[in-house]
Amino acid sequence: VATSWSSSGLDLHLDLVGGRSLADAIRHAVRDGRLAAGTRLPSTRALAADLGVARGTVTSAYAELAAEGYLRSRQGAPTVVAALPGGRAPAPTARPTTPPAEHRWNLMPGRPDLSLFPKTAWLAATRRALTAATATDLGYGDPQGHPALRQALADHLGRVRGVVATPDRIVVCGGHSQALRLLATVLHTAGARTIAFEDPSMPEFRLVTAAAGLTAIGIPVDEHGIQVDALAALPAPPAAVVVTPAHQFPLGSTLHPHRRAALVELARATDTLVIEDDYDGEFRFDRQPVGAVQALAPDQVVYAGTASKTLAPGLRLSWLVLPDRLVDPVCRARRFTDRHTGVIEQLTLAELLRAGDHDQHVRRCRTHYRRRRDRVVDLLTELGGELAPAGIAAGLHVVVLLGDSRTEADVLARAERHSLQLEGLGPTWLSDTSPTGAPRPGGLVIGYAAPPEHAFGLALRALTEVLTGRETDTR
Amino acid sequence: VATSWSSSGLDLHLDLVGGRSLADAIRHAVRDGRLAAGTRLPSTRALAADLGVARGTVTSAYAELAAEGYLRSRQGAPTVVAALPGGRAPAPTARPTTPPAEHRWNLMPGRPDLSLFPKTAWLAATRRALTAATATDLGYGDPQGHPALRQALADHLGRVRGVVATPDRIVVCGGHSQALRLLATVLHTAGARTIAFEDPSMPEFRLVTAAAGLTAIGIPVDEHGIQVDALAALPAPPAAVVVTPAHQFPLGSTLHPHRRAALVELARATDTLVIEDDYDGEFRFDRQPVGAVQALAPDQVVYAGTASKTLAPGLRLSWLVLPDRLVDPVCRARRFTDRHTGVIEQLTLAELLRAGDHDQHVRRCRTHYRRRRDRVVDLLTELGGELAPAGIAAGLHVVVLLGDSRTEADVLARAERHSLQLEGLGPTWLSDTSPTGAPRPGGLVIGYAAPPEHAFGLALRALTEVLTGRETDTR
Repeated sequence: VATSWSSSGLDLHLDLVGGRSLADAIRHAVRDGRLAAGTRLPSTRALAADLGVARGTVTSAYAELAAEGYLRSRQGAPTVVAALPGGRAPAPTARPTTPPAEHRWNLMPGRPDLSLFPKTAWLAATRRALTAATATDLGYGDPQGHPALRQALADHLGRVRGVVATPDRIVVCGGHSQALRLLATVLHTAGARTIAFEDPSMPEFRLVTAAAGLTAIGIPVDEHGIQVDALAALPAPPAAVVVTPAHQFPLGSTLHPHRRAALVELARATDTLVIEDDYDGEFRFDRQPVGAVQALAPDQVVYAGTASKTLAPGLRLSWLVLPDRLVDPVCRARRFTDRHTGVIEQLTLAELLRAGDHDQHVRRCRTHYRRRRDRVVDLLTELGGELAPAGIAAGLHVVVLLGDSRTEADVLARAERHSLQLEGLGPTWLSDTSPTGAPRPGGLVIGYAAPPEHAFGLALRALTEVLTGRETDTR
Repeated sequence: VATSWSSSGLDLHLDLVGGRSLADAIRHAVRDGRLAAGTRLPSTRALAADLGVARGTVTSAYAELAAEGYLRSRQGAPTVVAALPGGRAPAPTARPTTPPAEHRWNLMPGRPDLSLFPKTAWLAATRRALTAATATDLGYGDPQGHPALRQALADHLGRVRGVVATPDRIVVCGGHSQALRLLATVLHTAGARTIAFEDPSMPEFRLVTAAAGLTAIGIPVDEHGIQVDALAALPAPPAAVVVTPAHQFPLGSTLHPHRRAALVELARATDTLVIEDDYDGEFRFDRQPVGAVQALAPDQVVYAGTASKTLAPGLRLSWLVLPDRLVDPVCRARRFTDRHTGVIEQLTLAELLRAGDHDQHVRRCRTHYRRRRDRVVDLLTELGGELAPAGIAAGLHVVVLLGDSRTEADVLARAERHSLQLEGLGPTWLSDTSPTGAPRPGGLVIGYAAPPEHAFGLALRALTEVLTGRETDTR
């Protein structure tokens, strides 16, 4: 027979099988770690009532266990579980957890400065959202996303990024990986087997589409963005092409106006779905950002945005604006994946957008990142002409080309020795050589947004040392 | 050229292409709905500064658009977008959204009373969690779940449900659908093609495993839970079997102690993974709940729990306690699905568990649901012996058998006429007839937890009318 107590602010399950005594059951629970050190036990009166036994039985059991060192009891204080000598018994199959190597400095791309996260505004928005939330809001929700957030996003994306968006064509997702995975699943179910990516591009996303069964094809990129001619020259058109028109990842170019038009035209002619990954479109520093390609052809282009760069990746909040025909298939795929995104974060983000806190936060970050980019560019300029940064003044990262991949490996090894976390261009390439057979240039993708403000200067100093090969005493 | 303004608490994207005037660009944005009625425009001074044009240019544009009815401006007040006569222009491909049919009364199973959701405690826990959260916490997190929540769950599940759990074998998921989908994906990747379910069982979950490529096999259930003999008699053992030992869904039985042992033994002998869905194990009313089967064989049984019944389905929070060998495969599958669950909810739940608010909330709900179950049972007893409820005193629902499926359809049609949302047993069966060829009995799955307190009495009155066939004036 198994039993629990529940009267004293604590639910505890005890196995009282085969005539096992209460003391033995508690001993067992402490030994195998189910009762952690410091846990308060119920009063003898409450436990006796719960178990339907005499209070003396419980008192004796507690006394026995205290004598054995399993419990600590003091006059007038609750009885608590003692720390066993040597700690809790080993779990049956404990996996050793190897913590990831800790770096002192972090210049990884794709990370915002999370010390800027608007905790106060987020909390206030959560309060408003929870106060207003109905019982229905807290139940199983719409796989497409809560209508309030879809409305707020439609207004926001139209206003800020020129997206042609209505709430009924928006799907709220749990981060861009999930959004891309859902799209890839829908395409695969419809018979697709290939998907084109910019070469170079974010390696993580190629793993995501591969998990859905699609083979990635690389399309070259130059200073005007993806080479649409190369896409057109493929023997067979892919089902979809993933592009980063506002700020190519990682090289940093903007898609040229002629290419925007050509891409849309080609997509229409070959029925290729364009997936526009607008991961950092909010952050352009030198001029006003170019609007979303999606507005040119809302029925051929999927617009994908995320809160990972503007707010925090840990939120797992993103959105798709879909051609009408894809809304139902994507929602169906979502329903049998995880039903929908948590409703409290959805309503909180809707509040943040509606109240203007989101716009205010983005403006503050923009100023912050612009200053940081300027400092990195100044530093690279000082270090010498061959380290000139590529790309436009935008986003959270800048690429610097190093010549060849051997140099890249050397620099990254040096960064490791300086405890500087840094990413090379290497993993972003789909193929080892360019279409003309030339080896890929080495390079660094410097994420200047990642460190908190107090560490930024020192991270740049570490970068200087890594780039110049000078070893100093900072470590 | 596209441009935005950003100085006045508002980011707006405008297309100023091909020499289009400012007035024309704003007109266009209002017409296609990107600027919603009521949106405040920046001051003429701010916009002029942003665009680098003379202030007079902006003033003229605003005046022109006000004259045309696109904007409203009043002395001393900000200029706002006017409501267009006839509303905003139709979106290019607006989908008509058909709202789901609204029912007046709700007795659907699997829904807690969400008017009990502990908003104050949740918000306070969010405040504590956010205050303590580091920048690292807000970044890309561990696919396995935040260590703080895994520790809190390990303590909680050991204490309350007798689960043998260590943080390194827990995976935090976005609801039980996702947890089951991940397990099914891992099994399918390893070559599995079949999975056994109790017959009857929750139909939704069979769709989830089917989406991962697994064929469902039904195993009969009686008043002692799943018939382990029938599982043993399958021509080939399935890769996994999903069971609800604490409270069979929907029939409400508890797995008999002999069958618990037999299930574990069979699972070991045939290397069948047991997936223990402990969806409402916190709610047992007549005695202390039986502990998790998982404790008998932590290396052969996956324990799956959820916050959907104790807190709210809208949170999308659940957890798996896995045999060691499955931790890495499940985390890998998770990484390429949506990386991880949102960190703020994870940290909030950890706080709620640690502070004891969760235990307190569950106790409160238990009292509440026990009272409701008693009222339903009393009602059914009054209505006559053939409506005796099946199953133990536990959980959020009770099943009443009606004889045959024709009666079930009749009763459900009557419920619809009374605007009472109710579920029949029908969809829970995997096969139309029992192993002996008998037709399945009709029945109702009455979810007494679903309505808020003020509506419960009236929902029961509607149920009475539906069951007795009397039509009264309540509608």
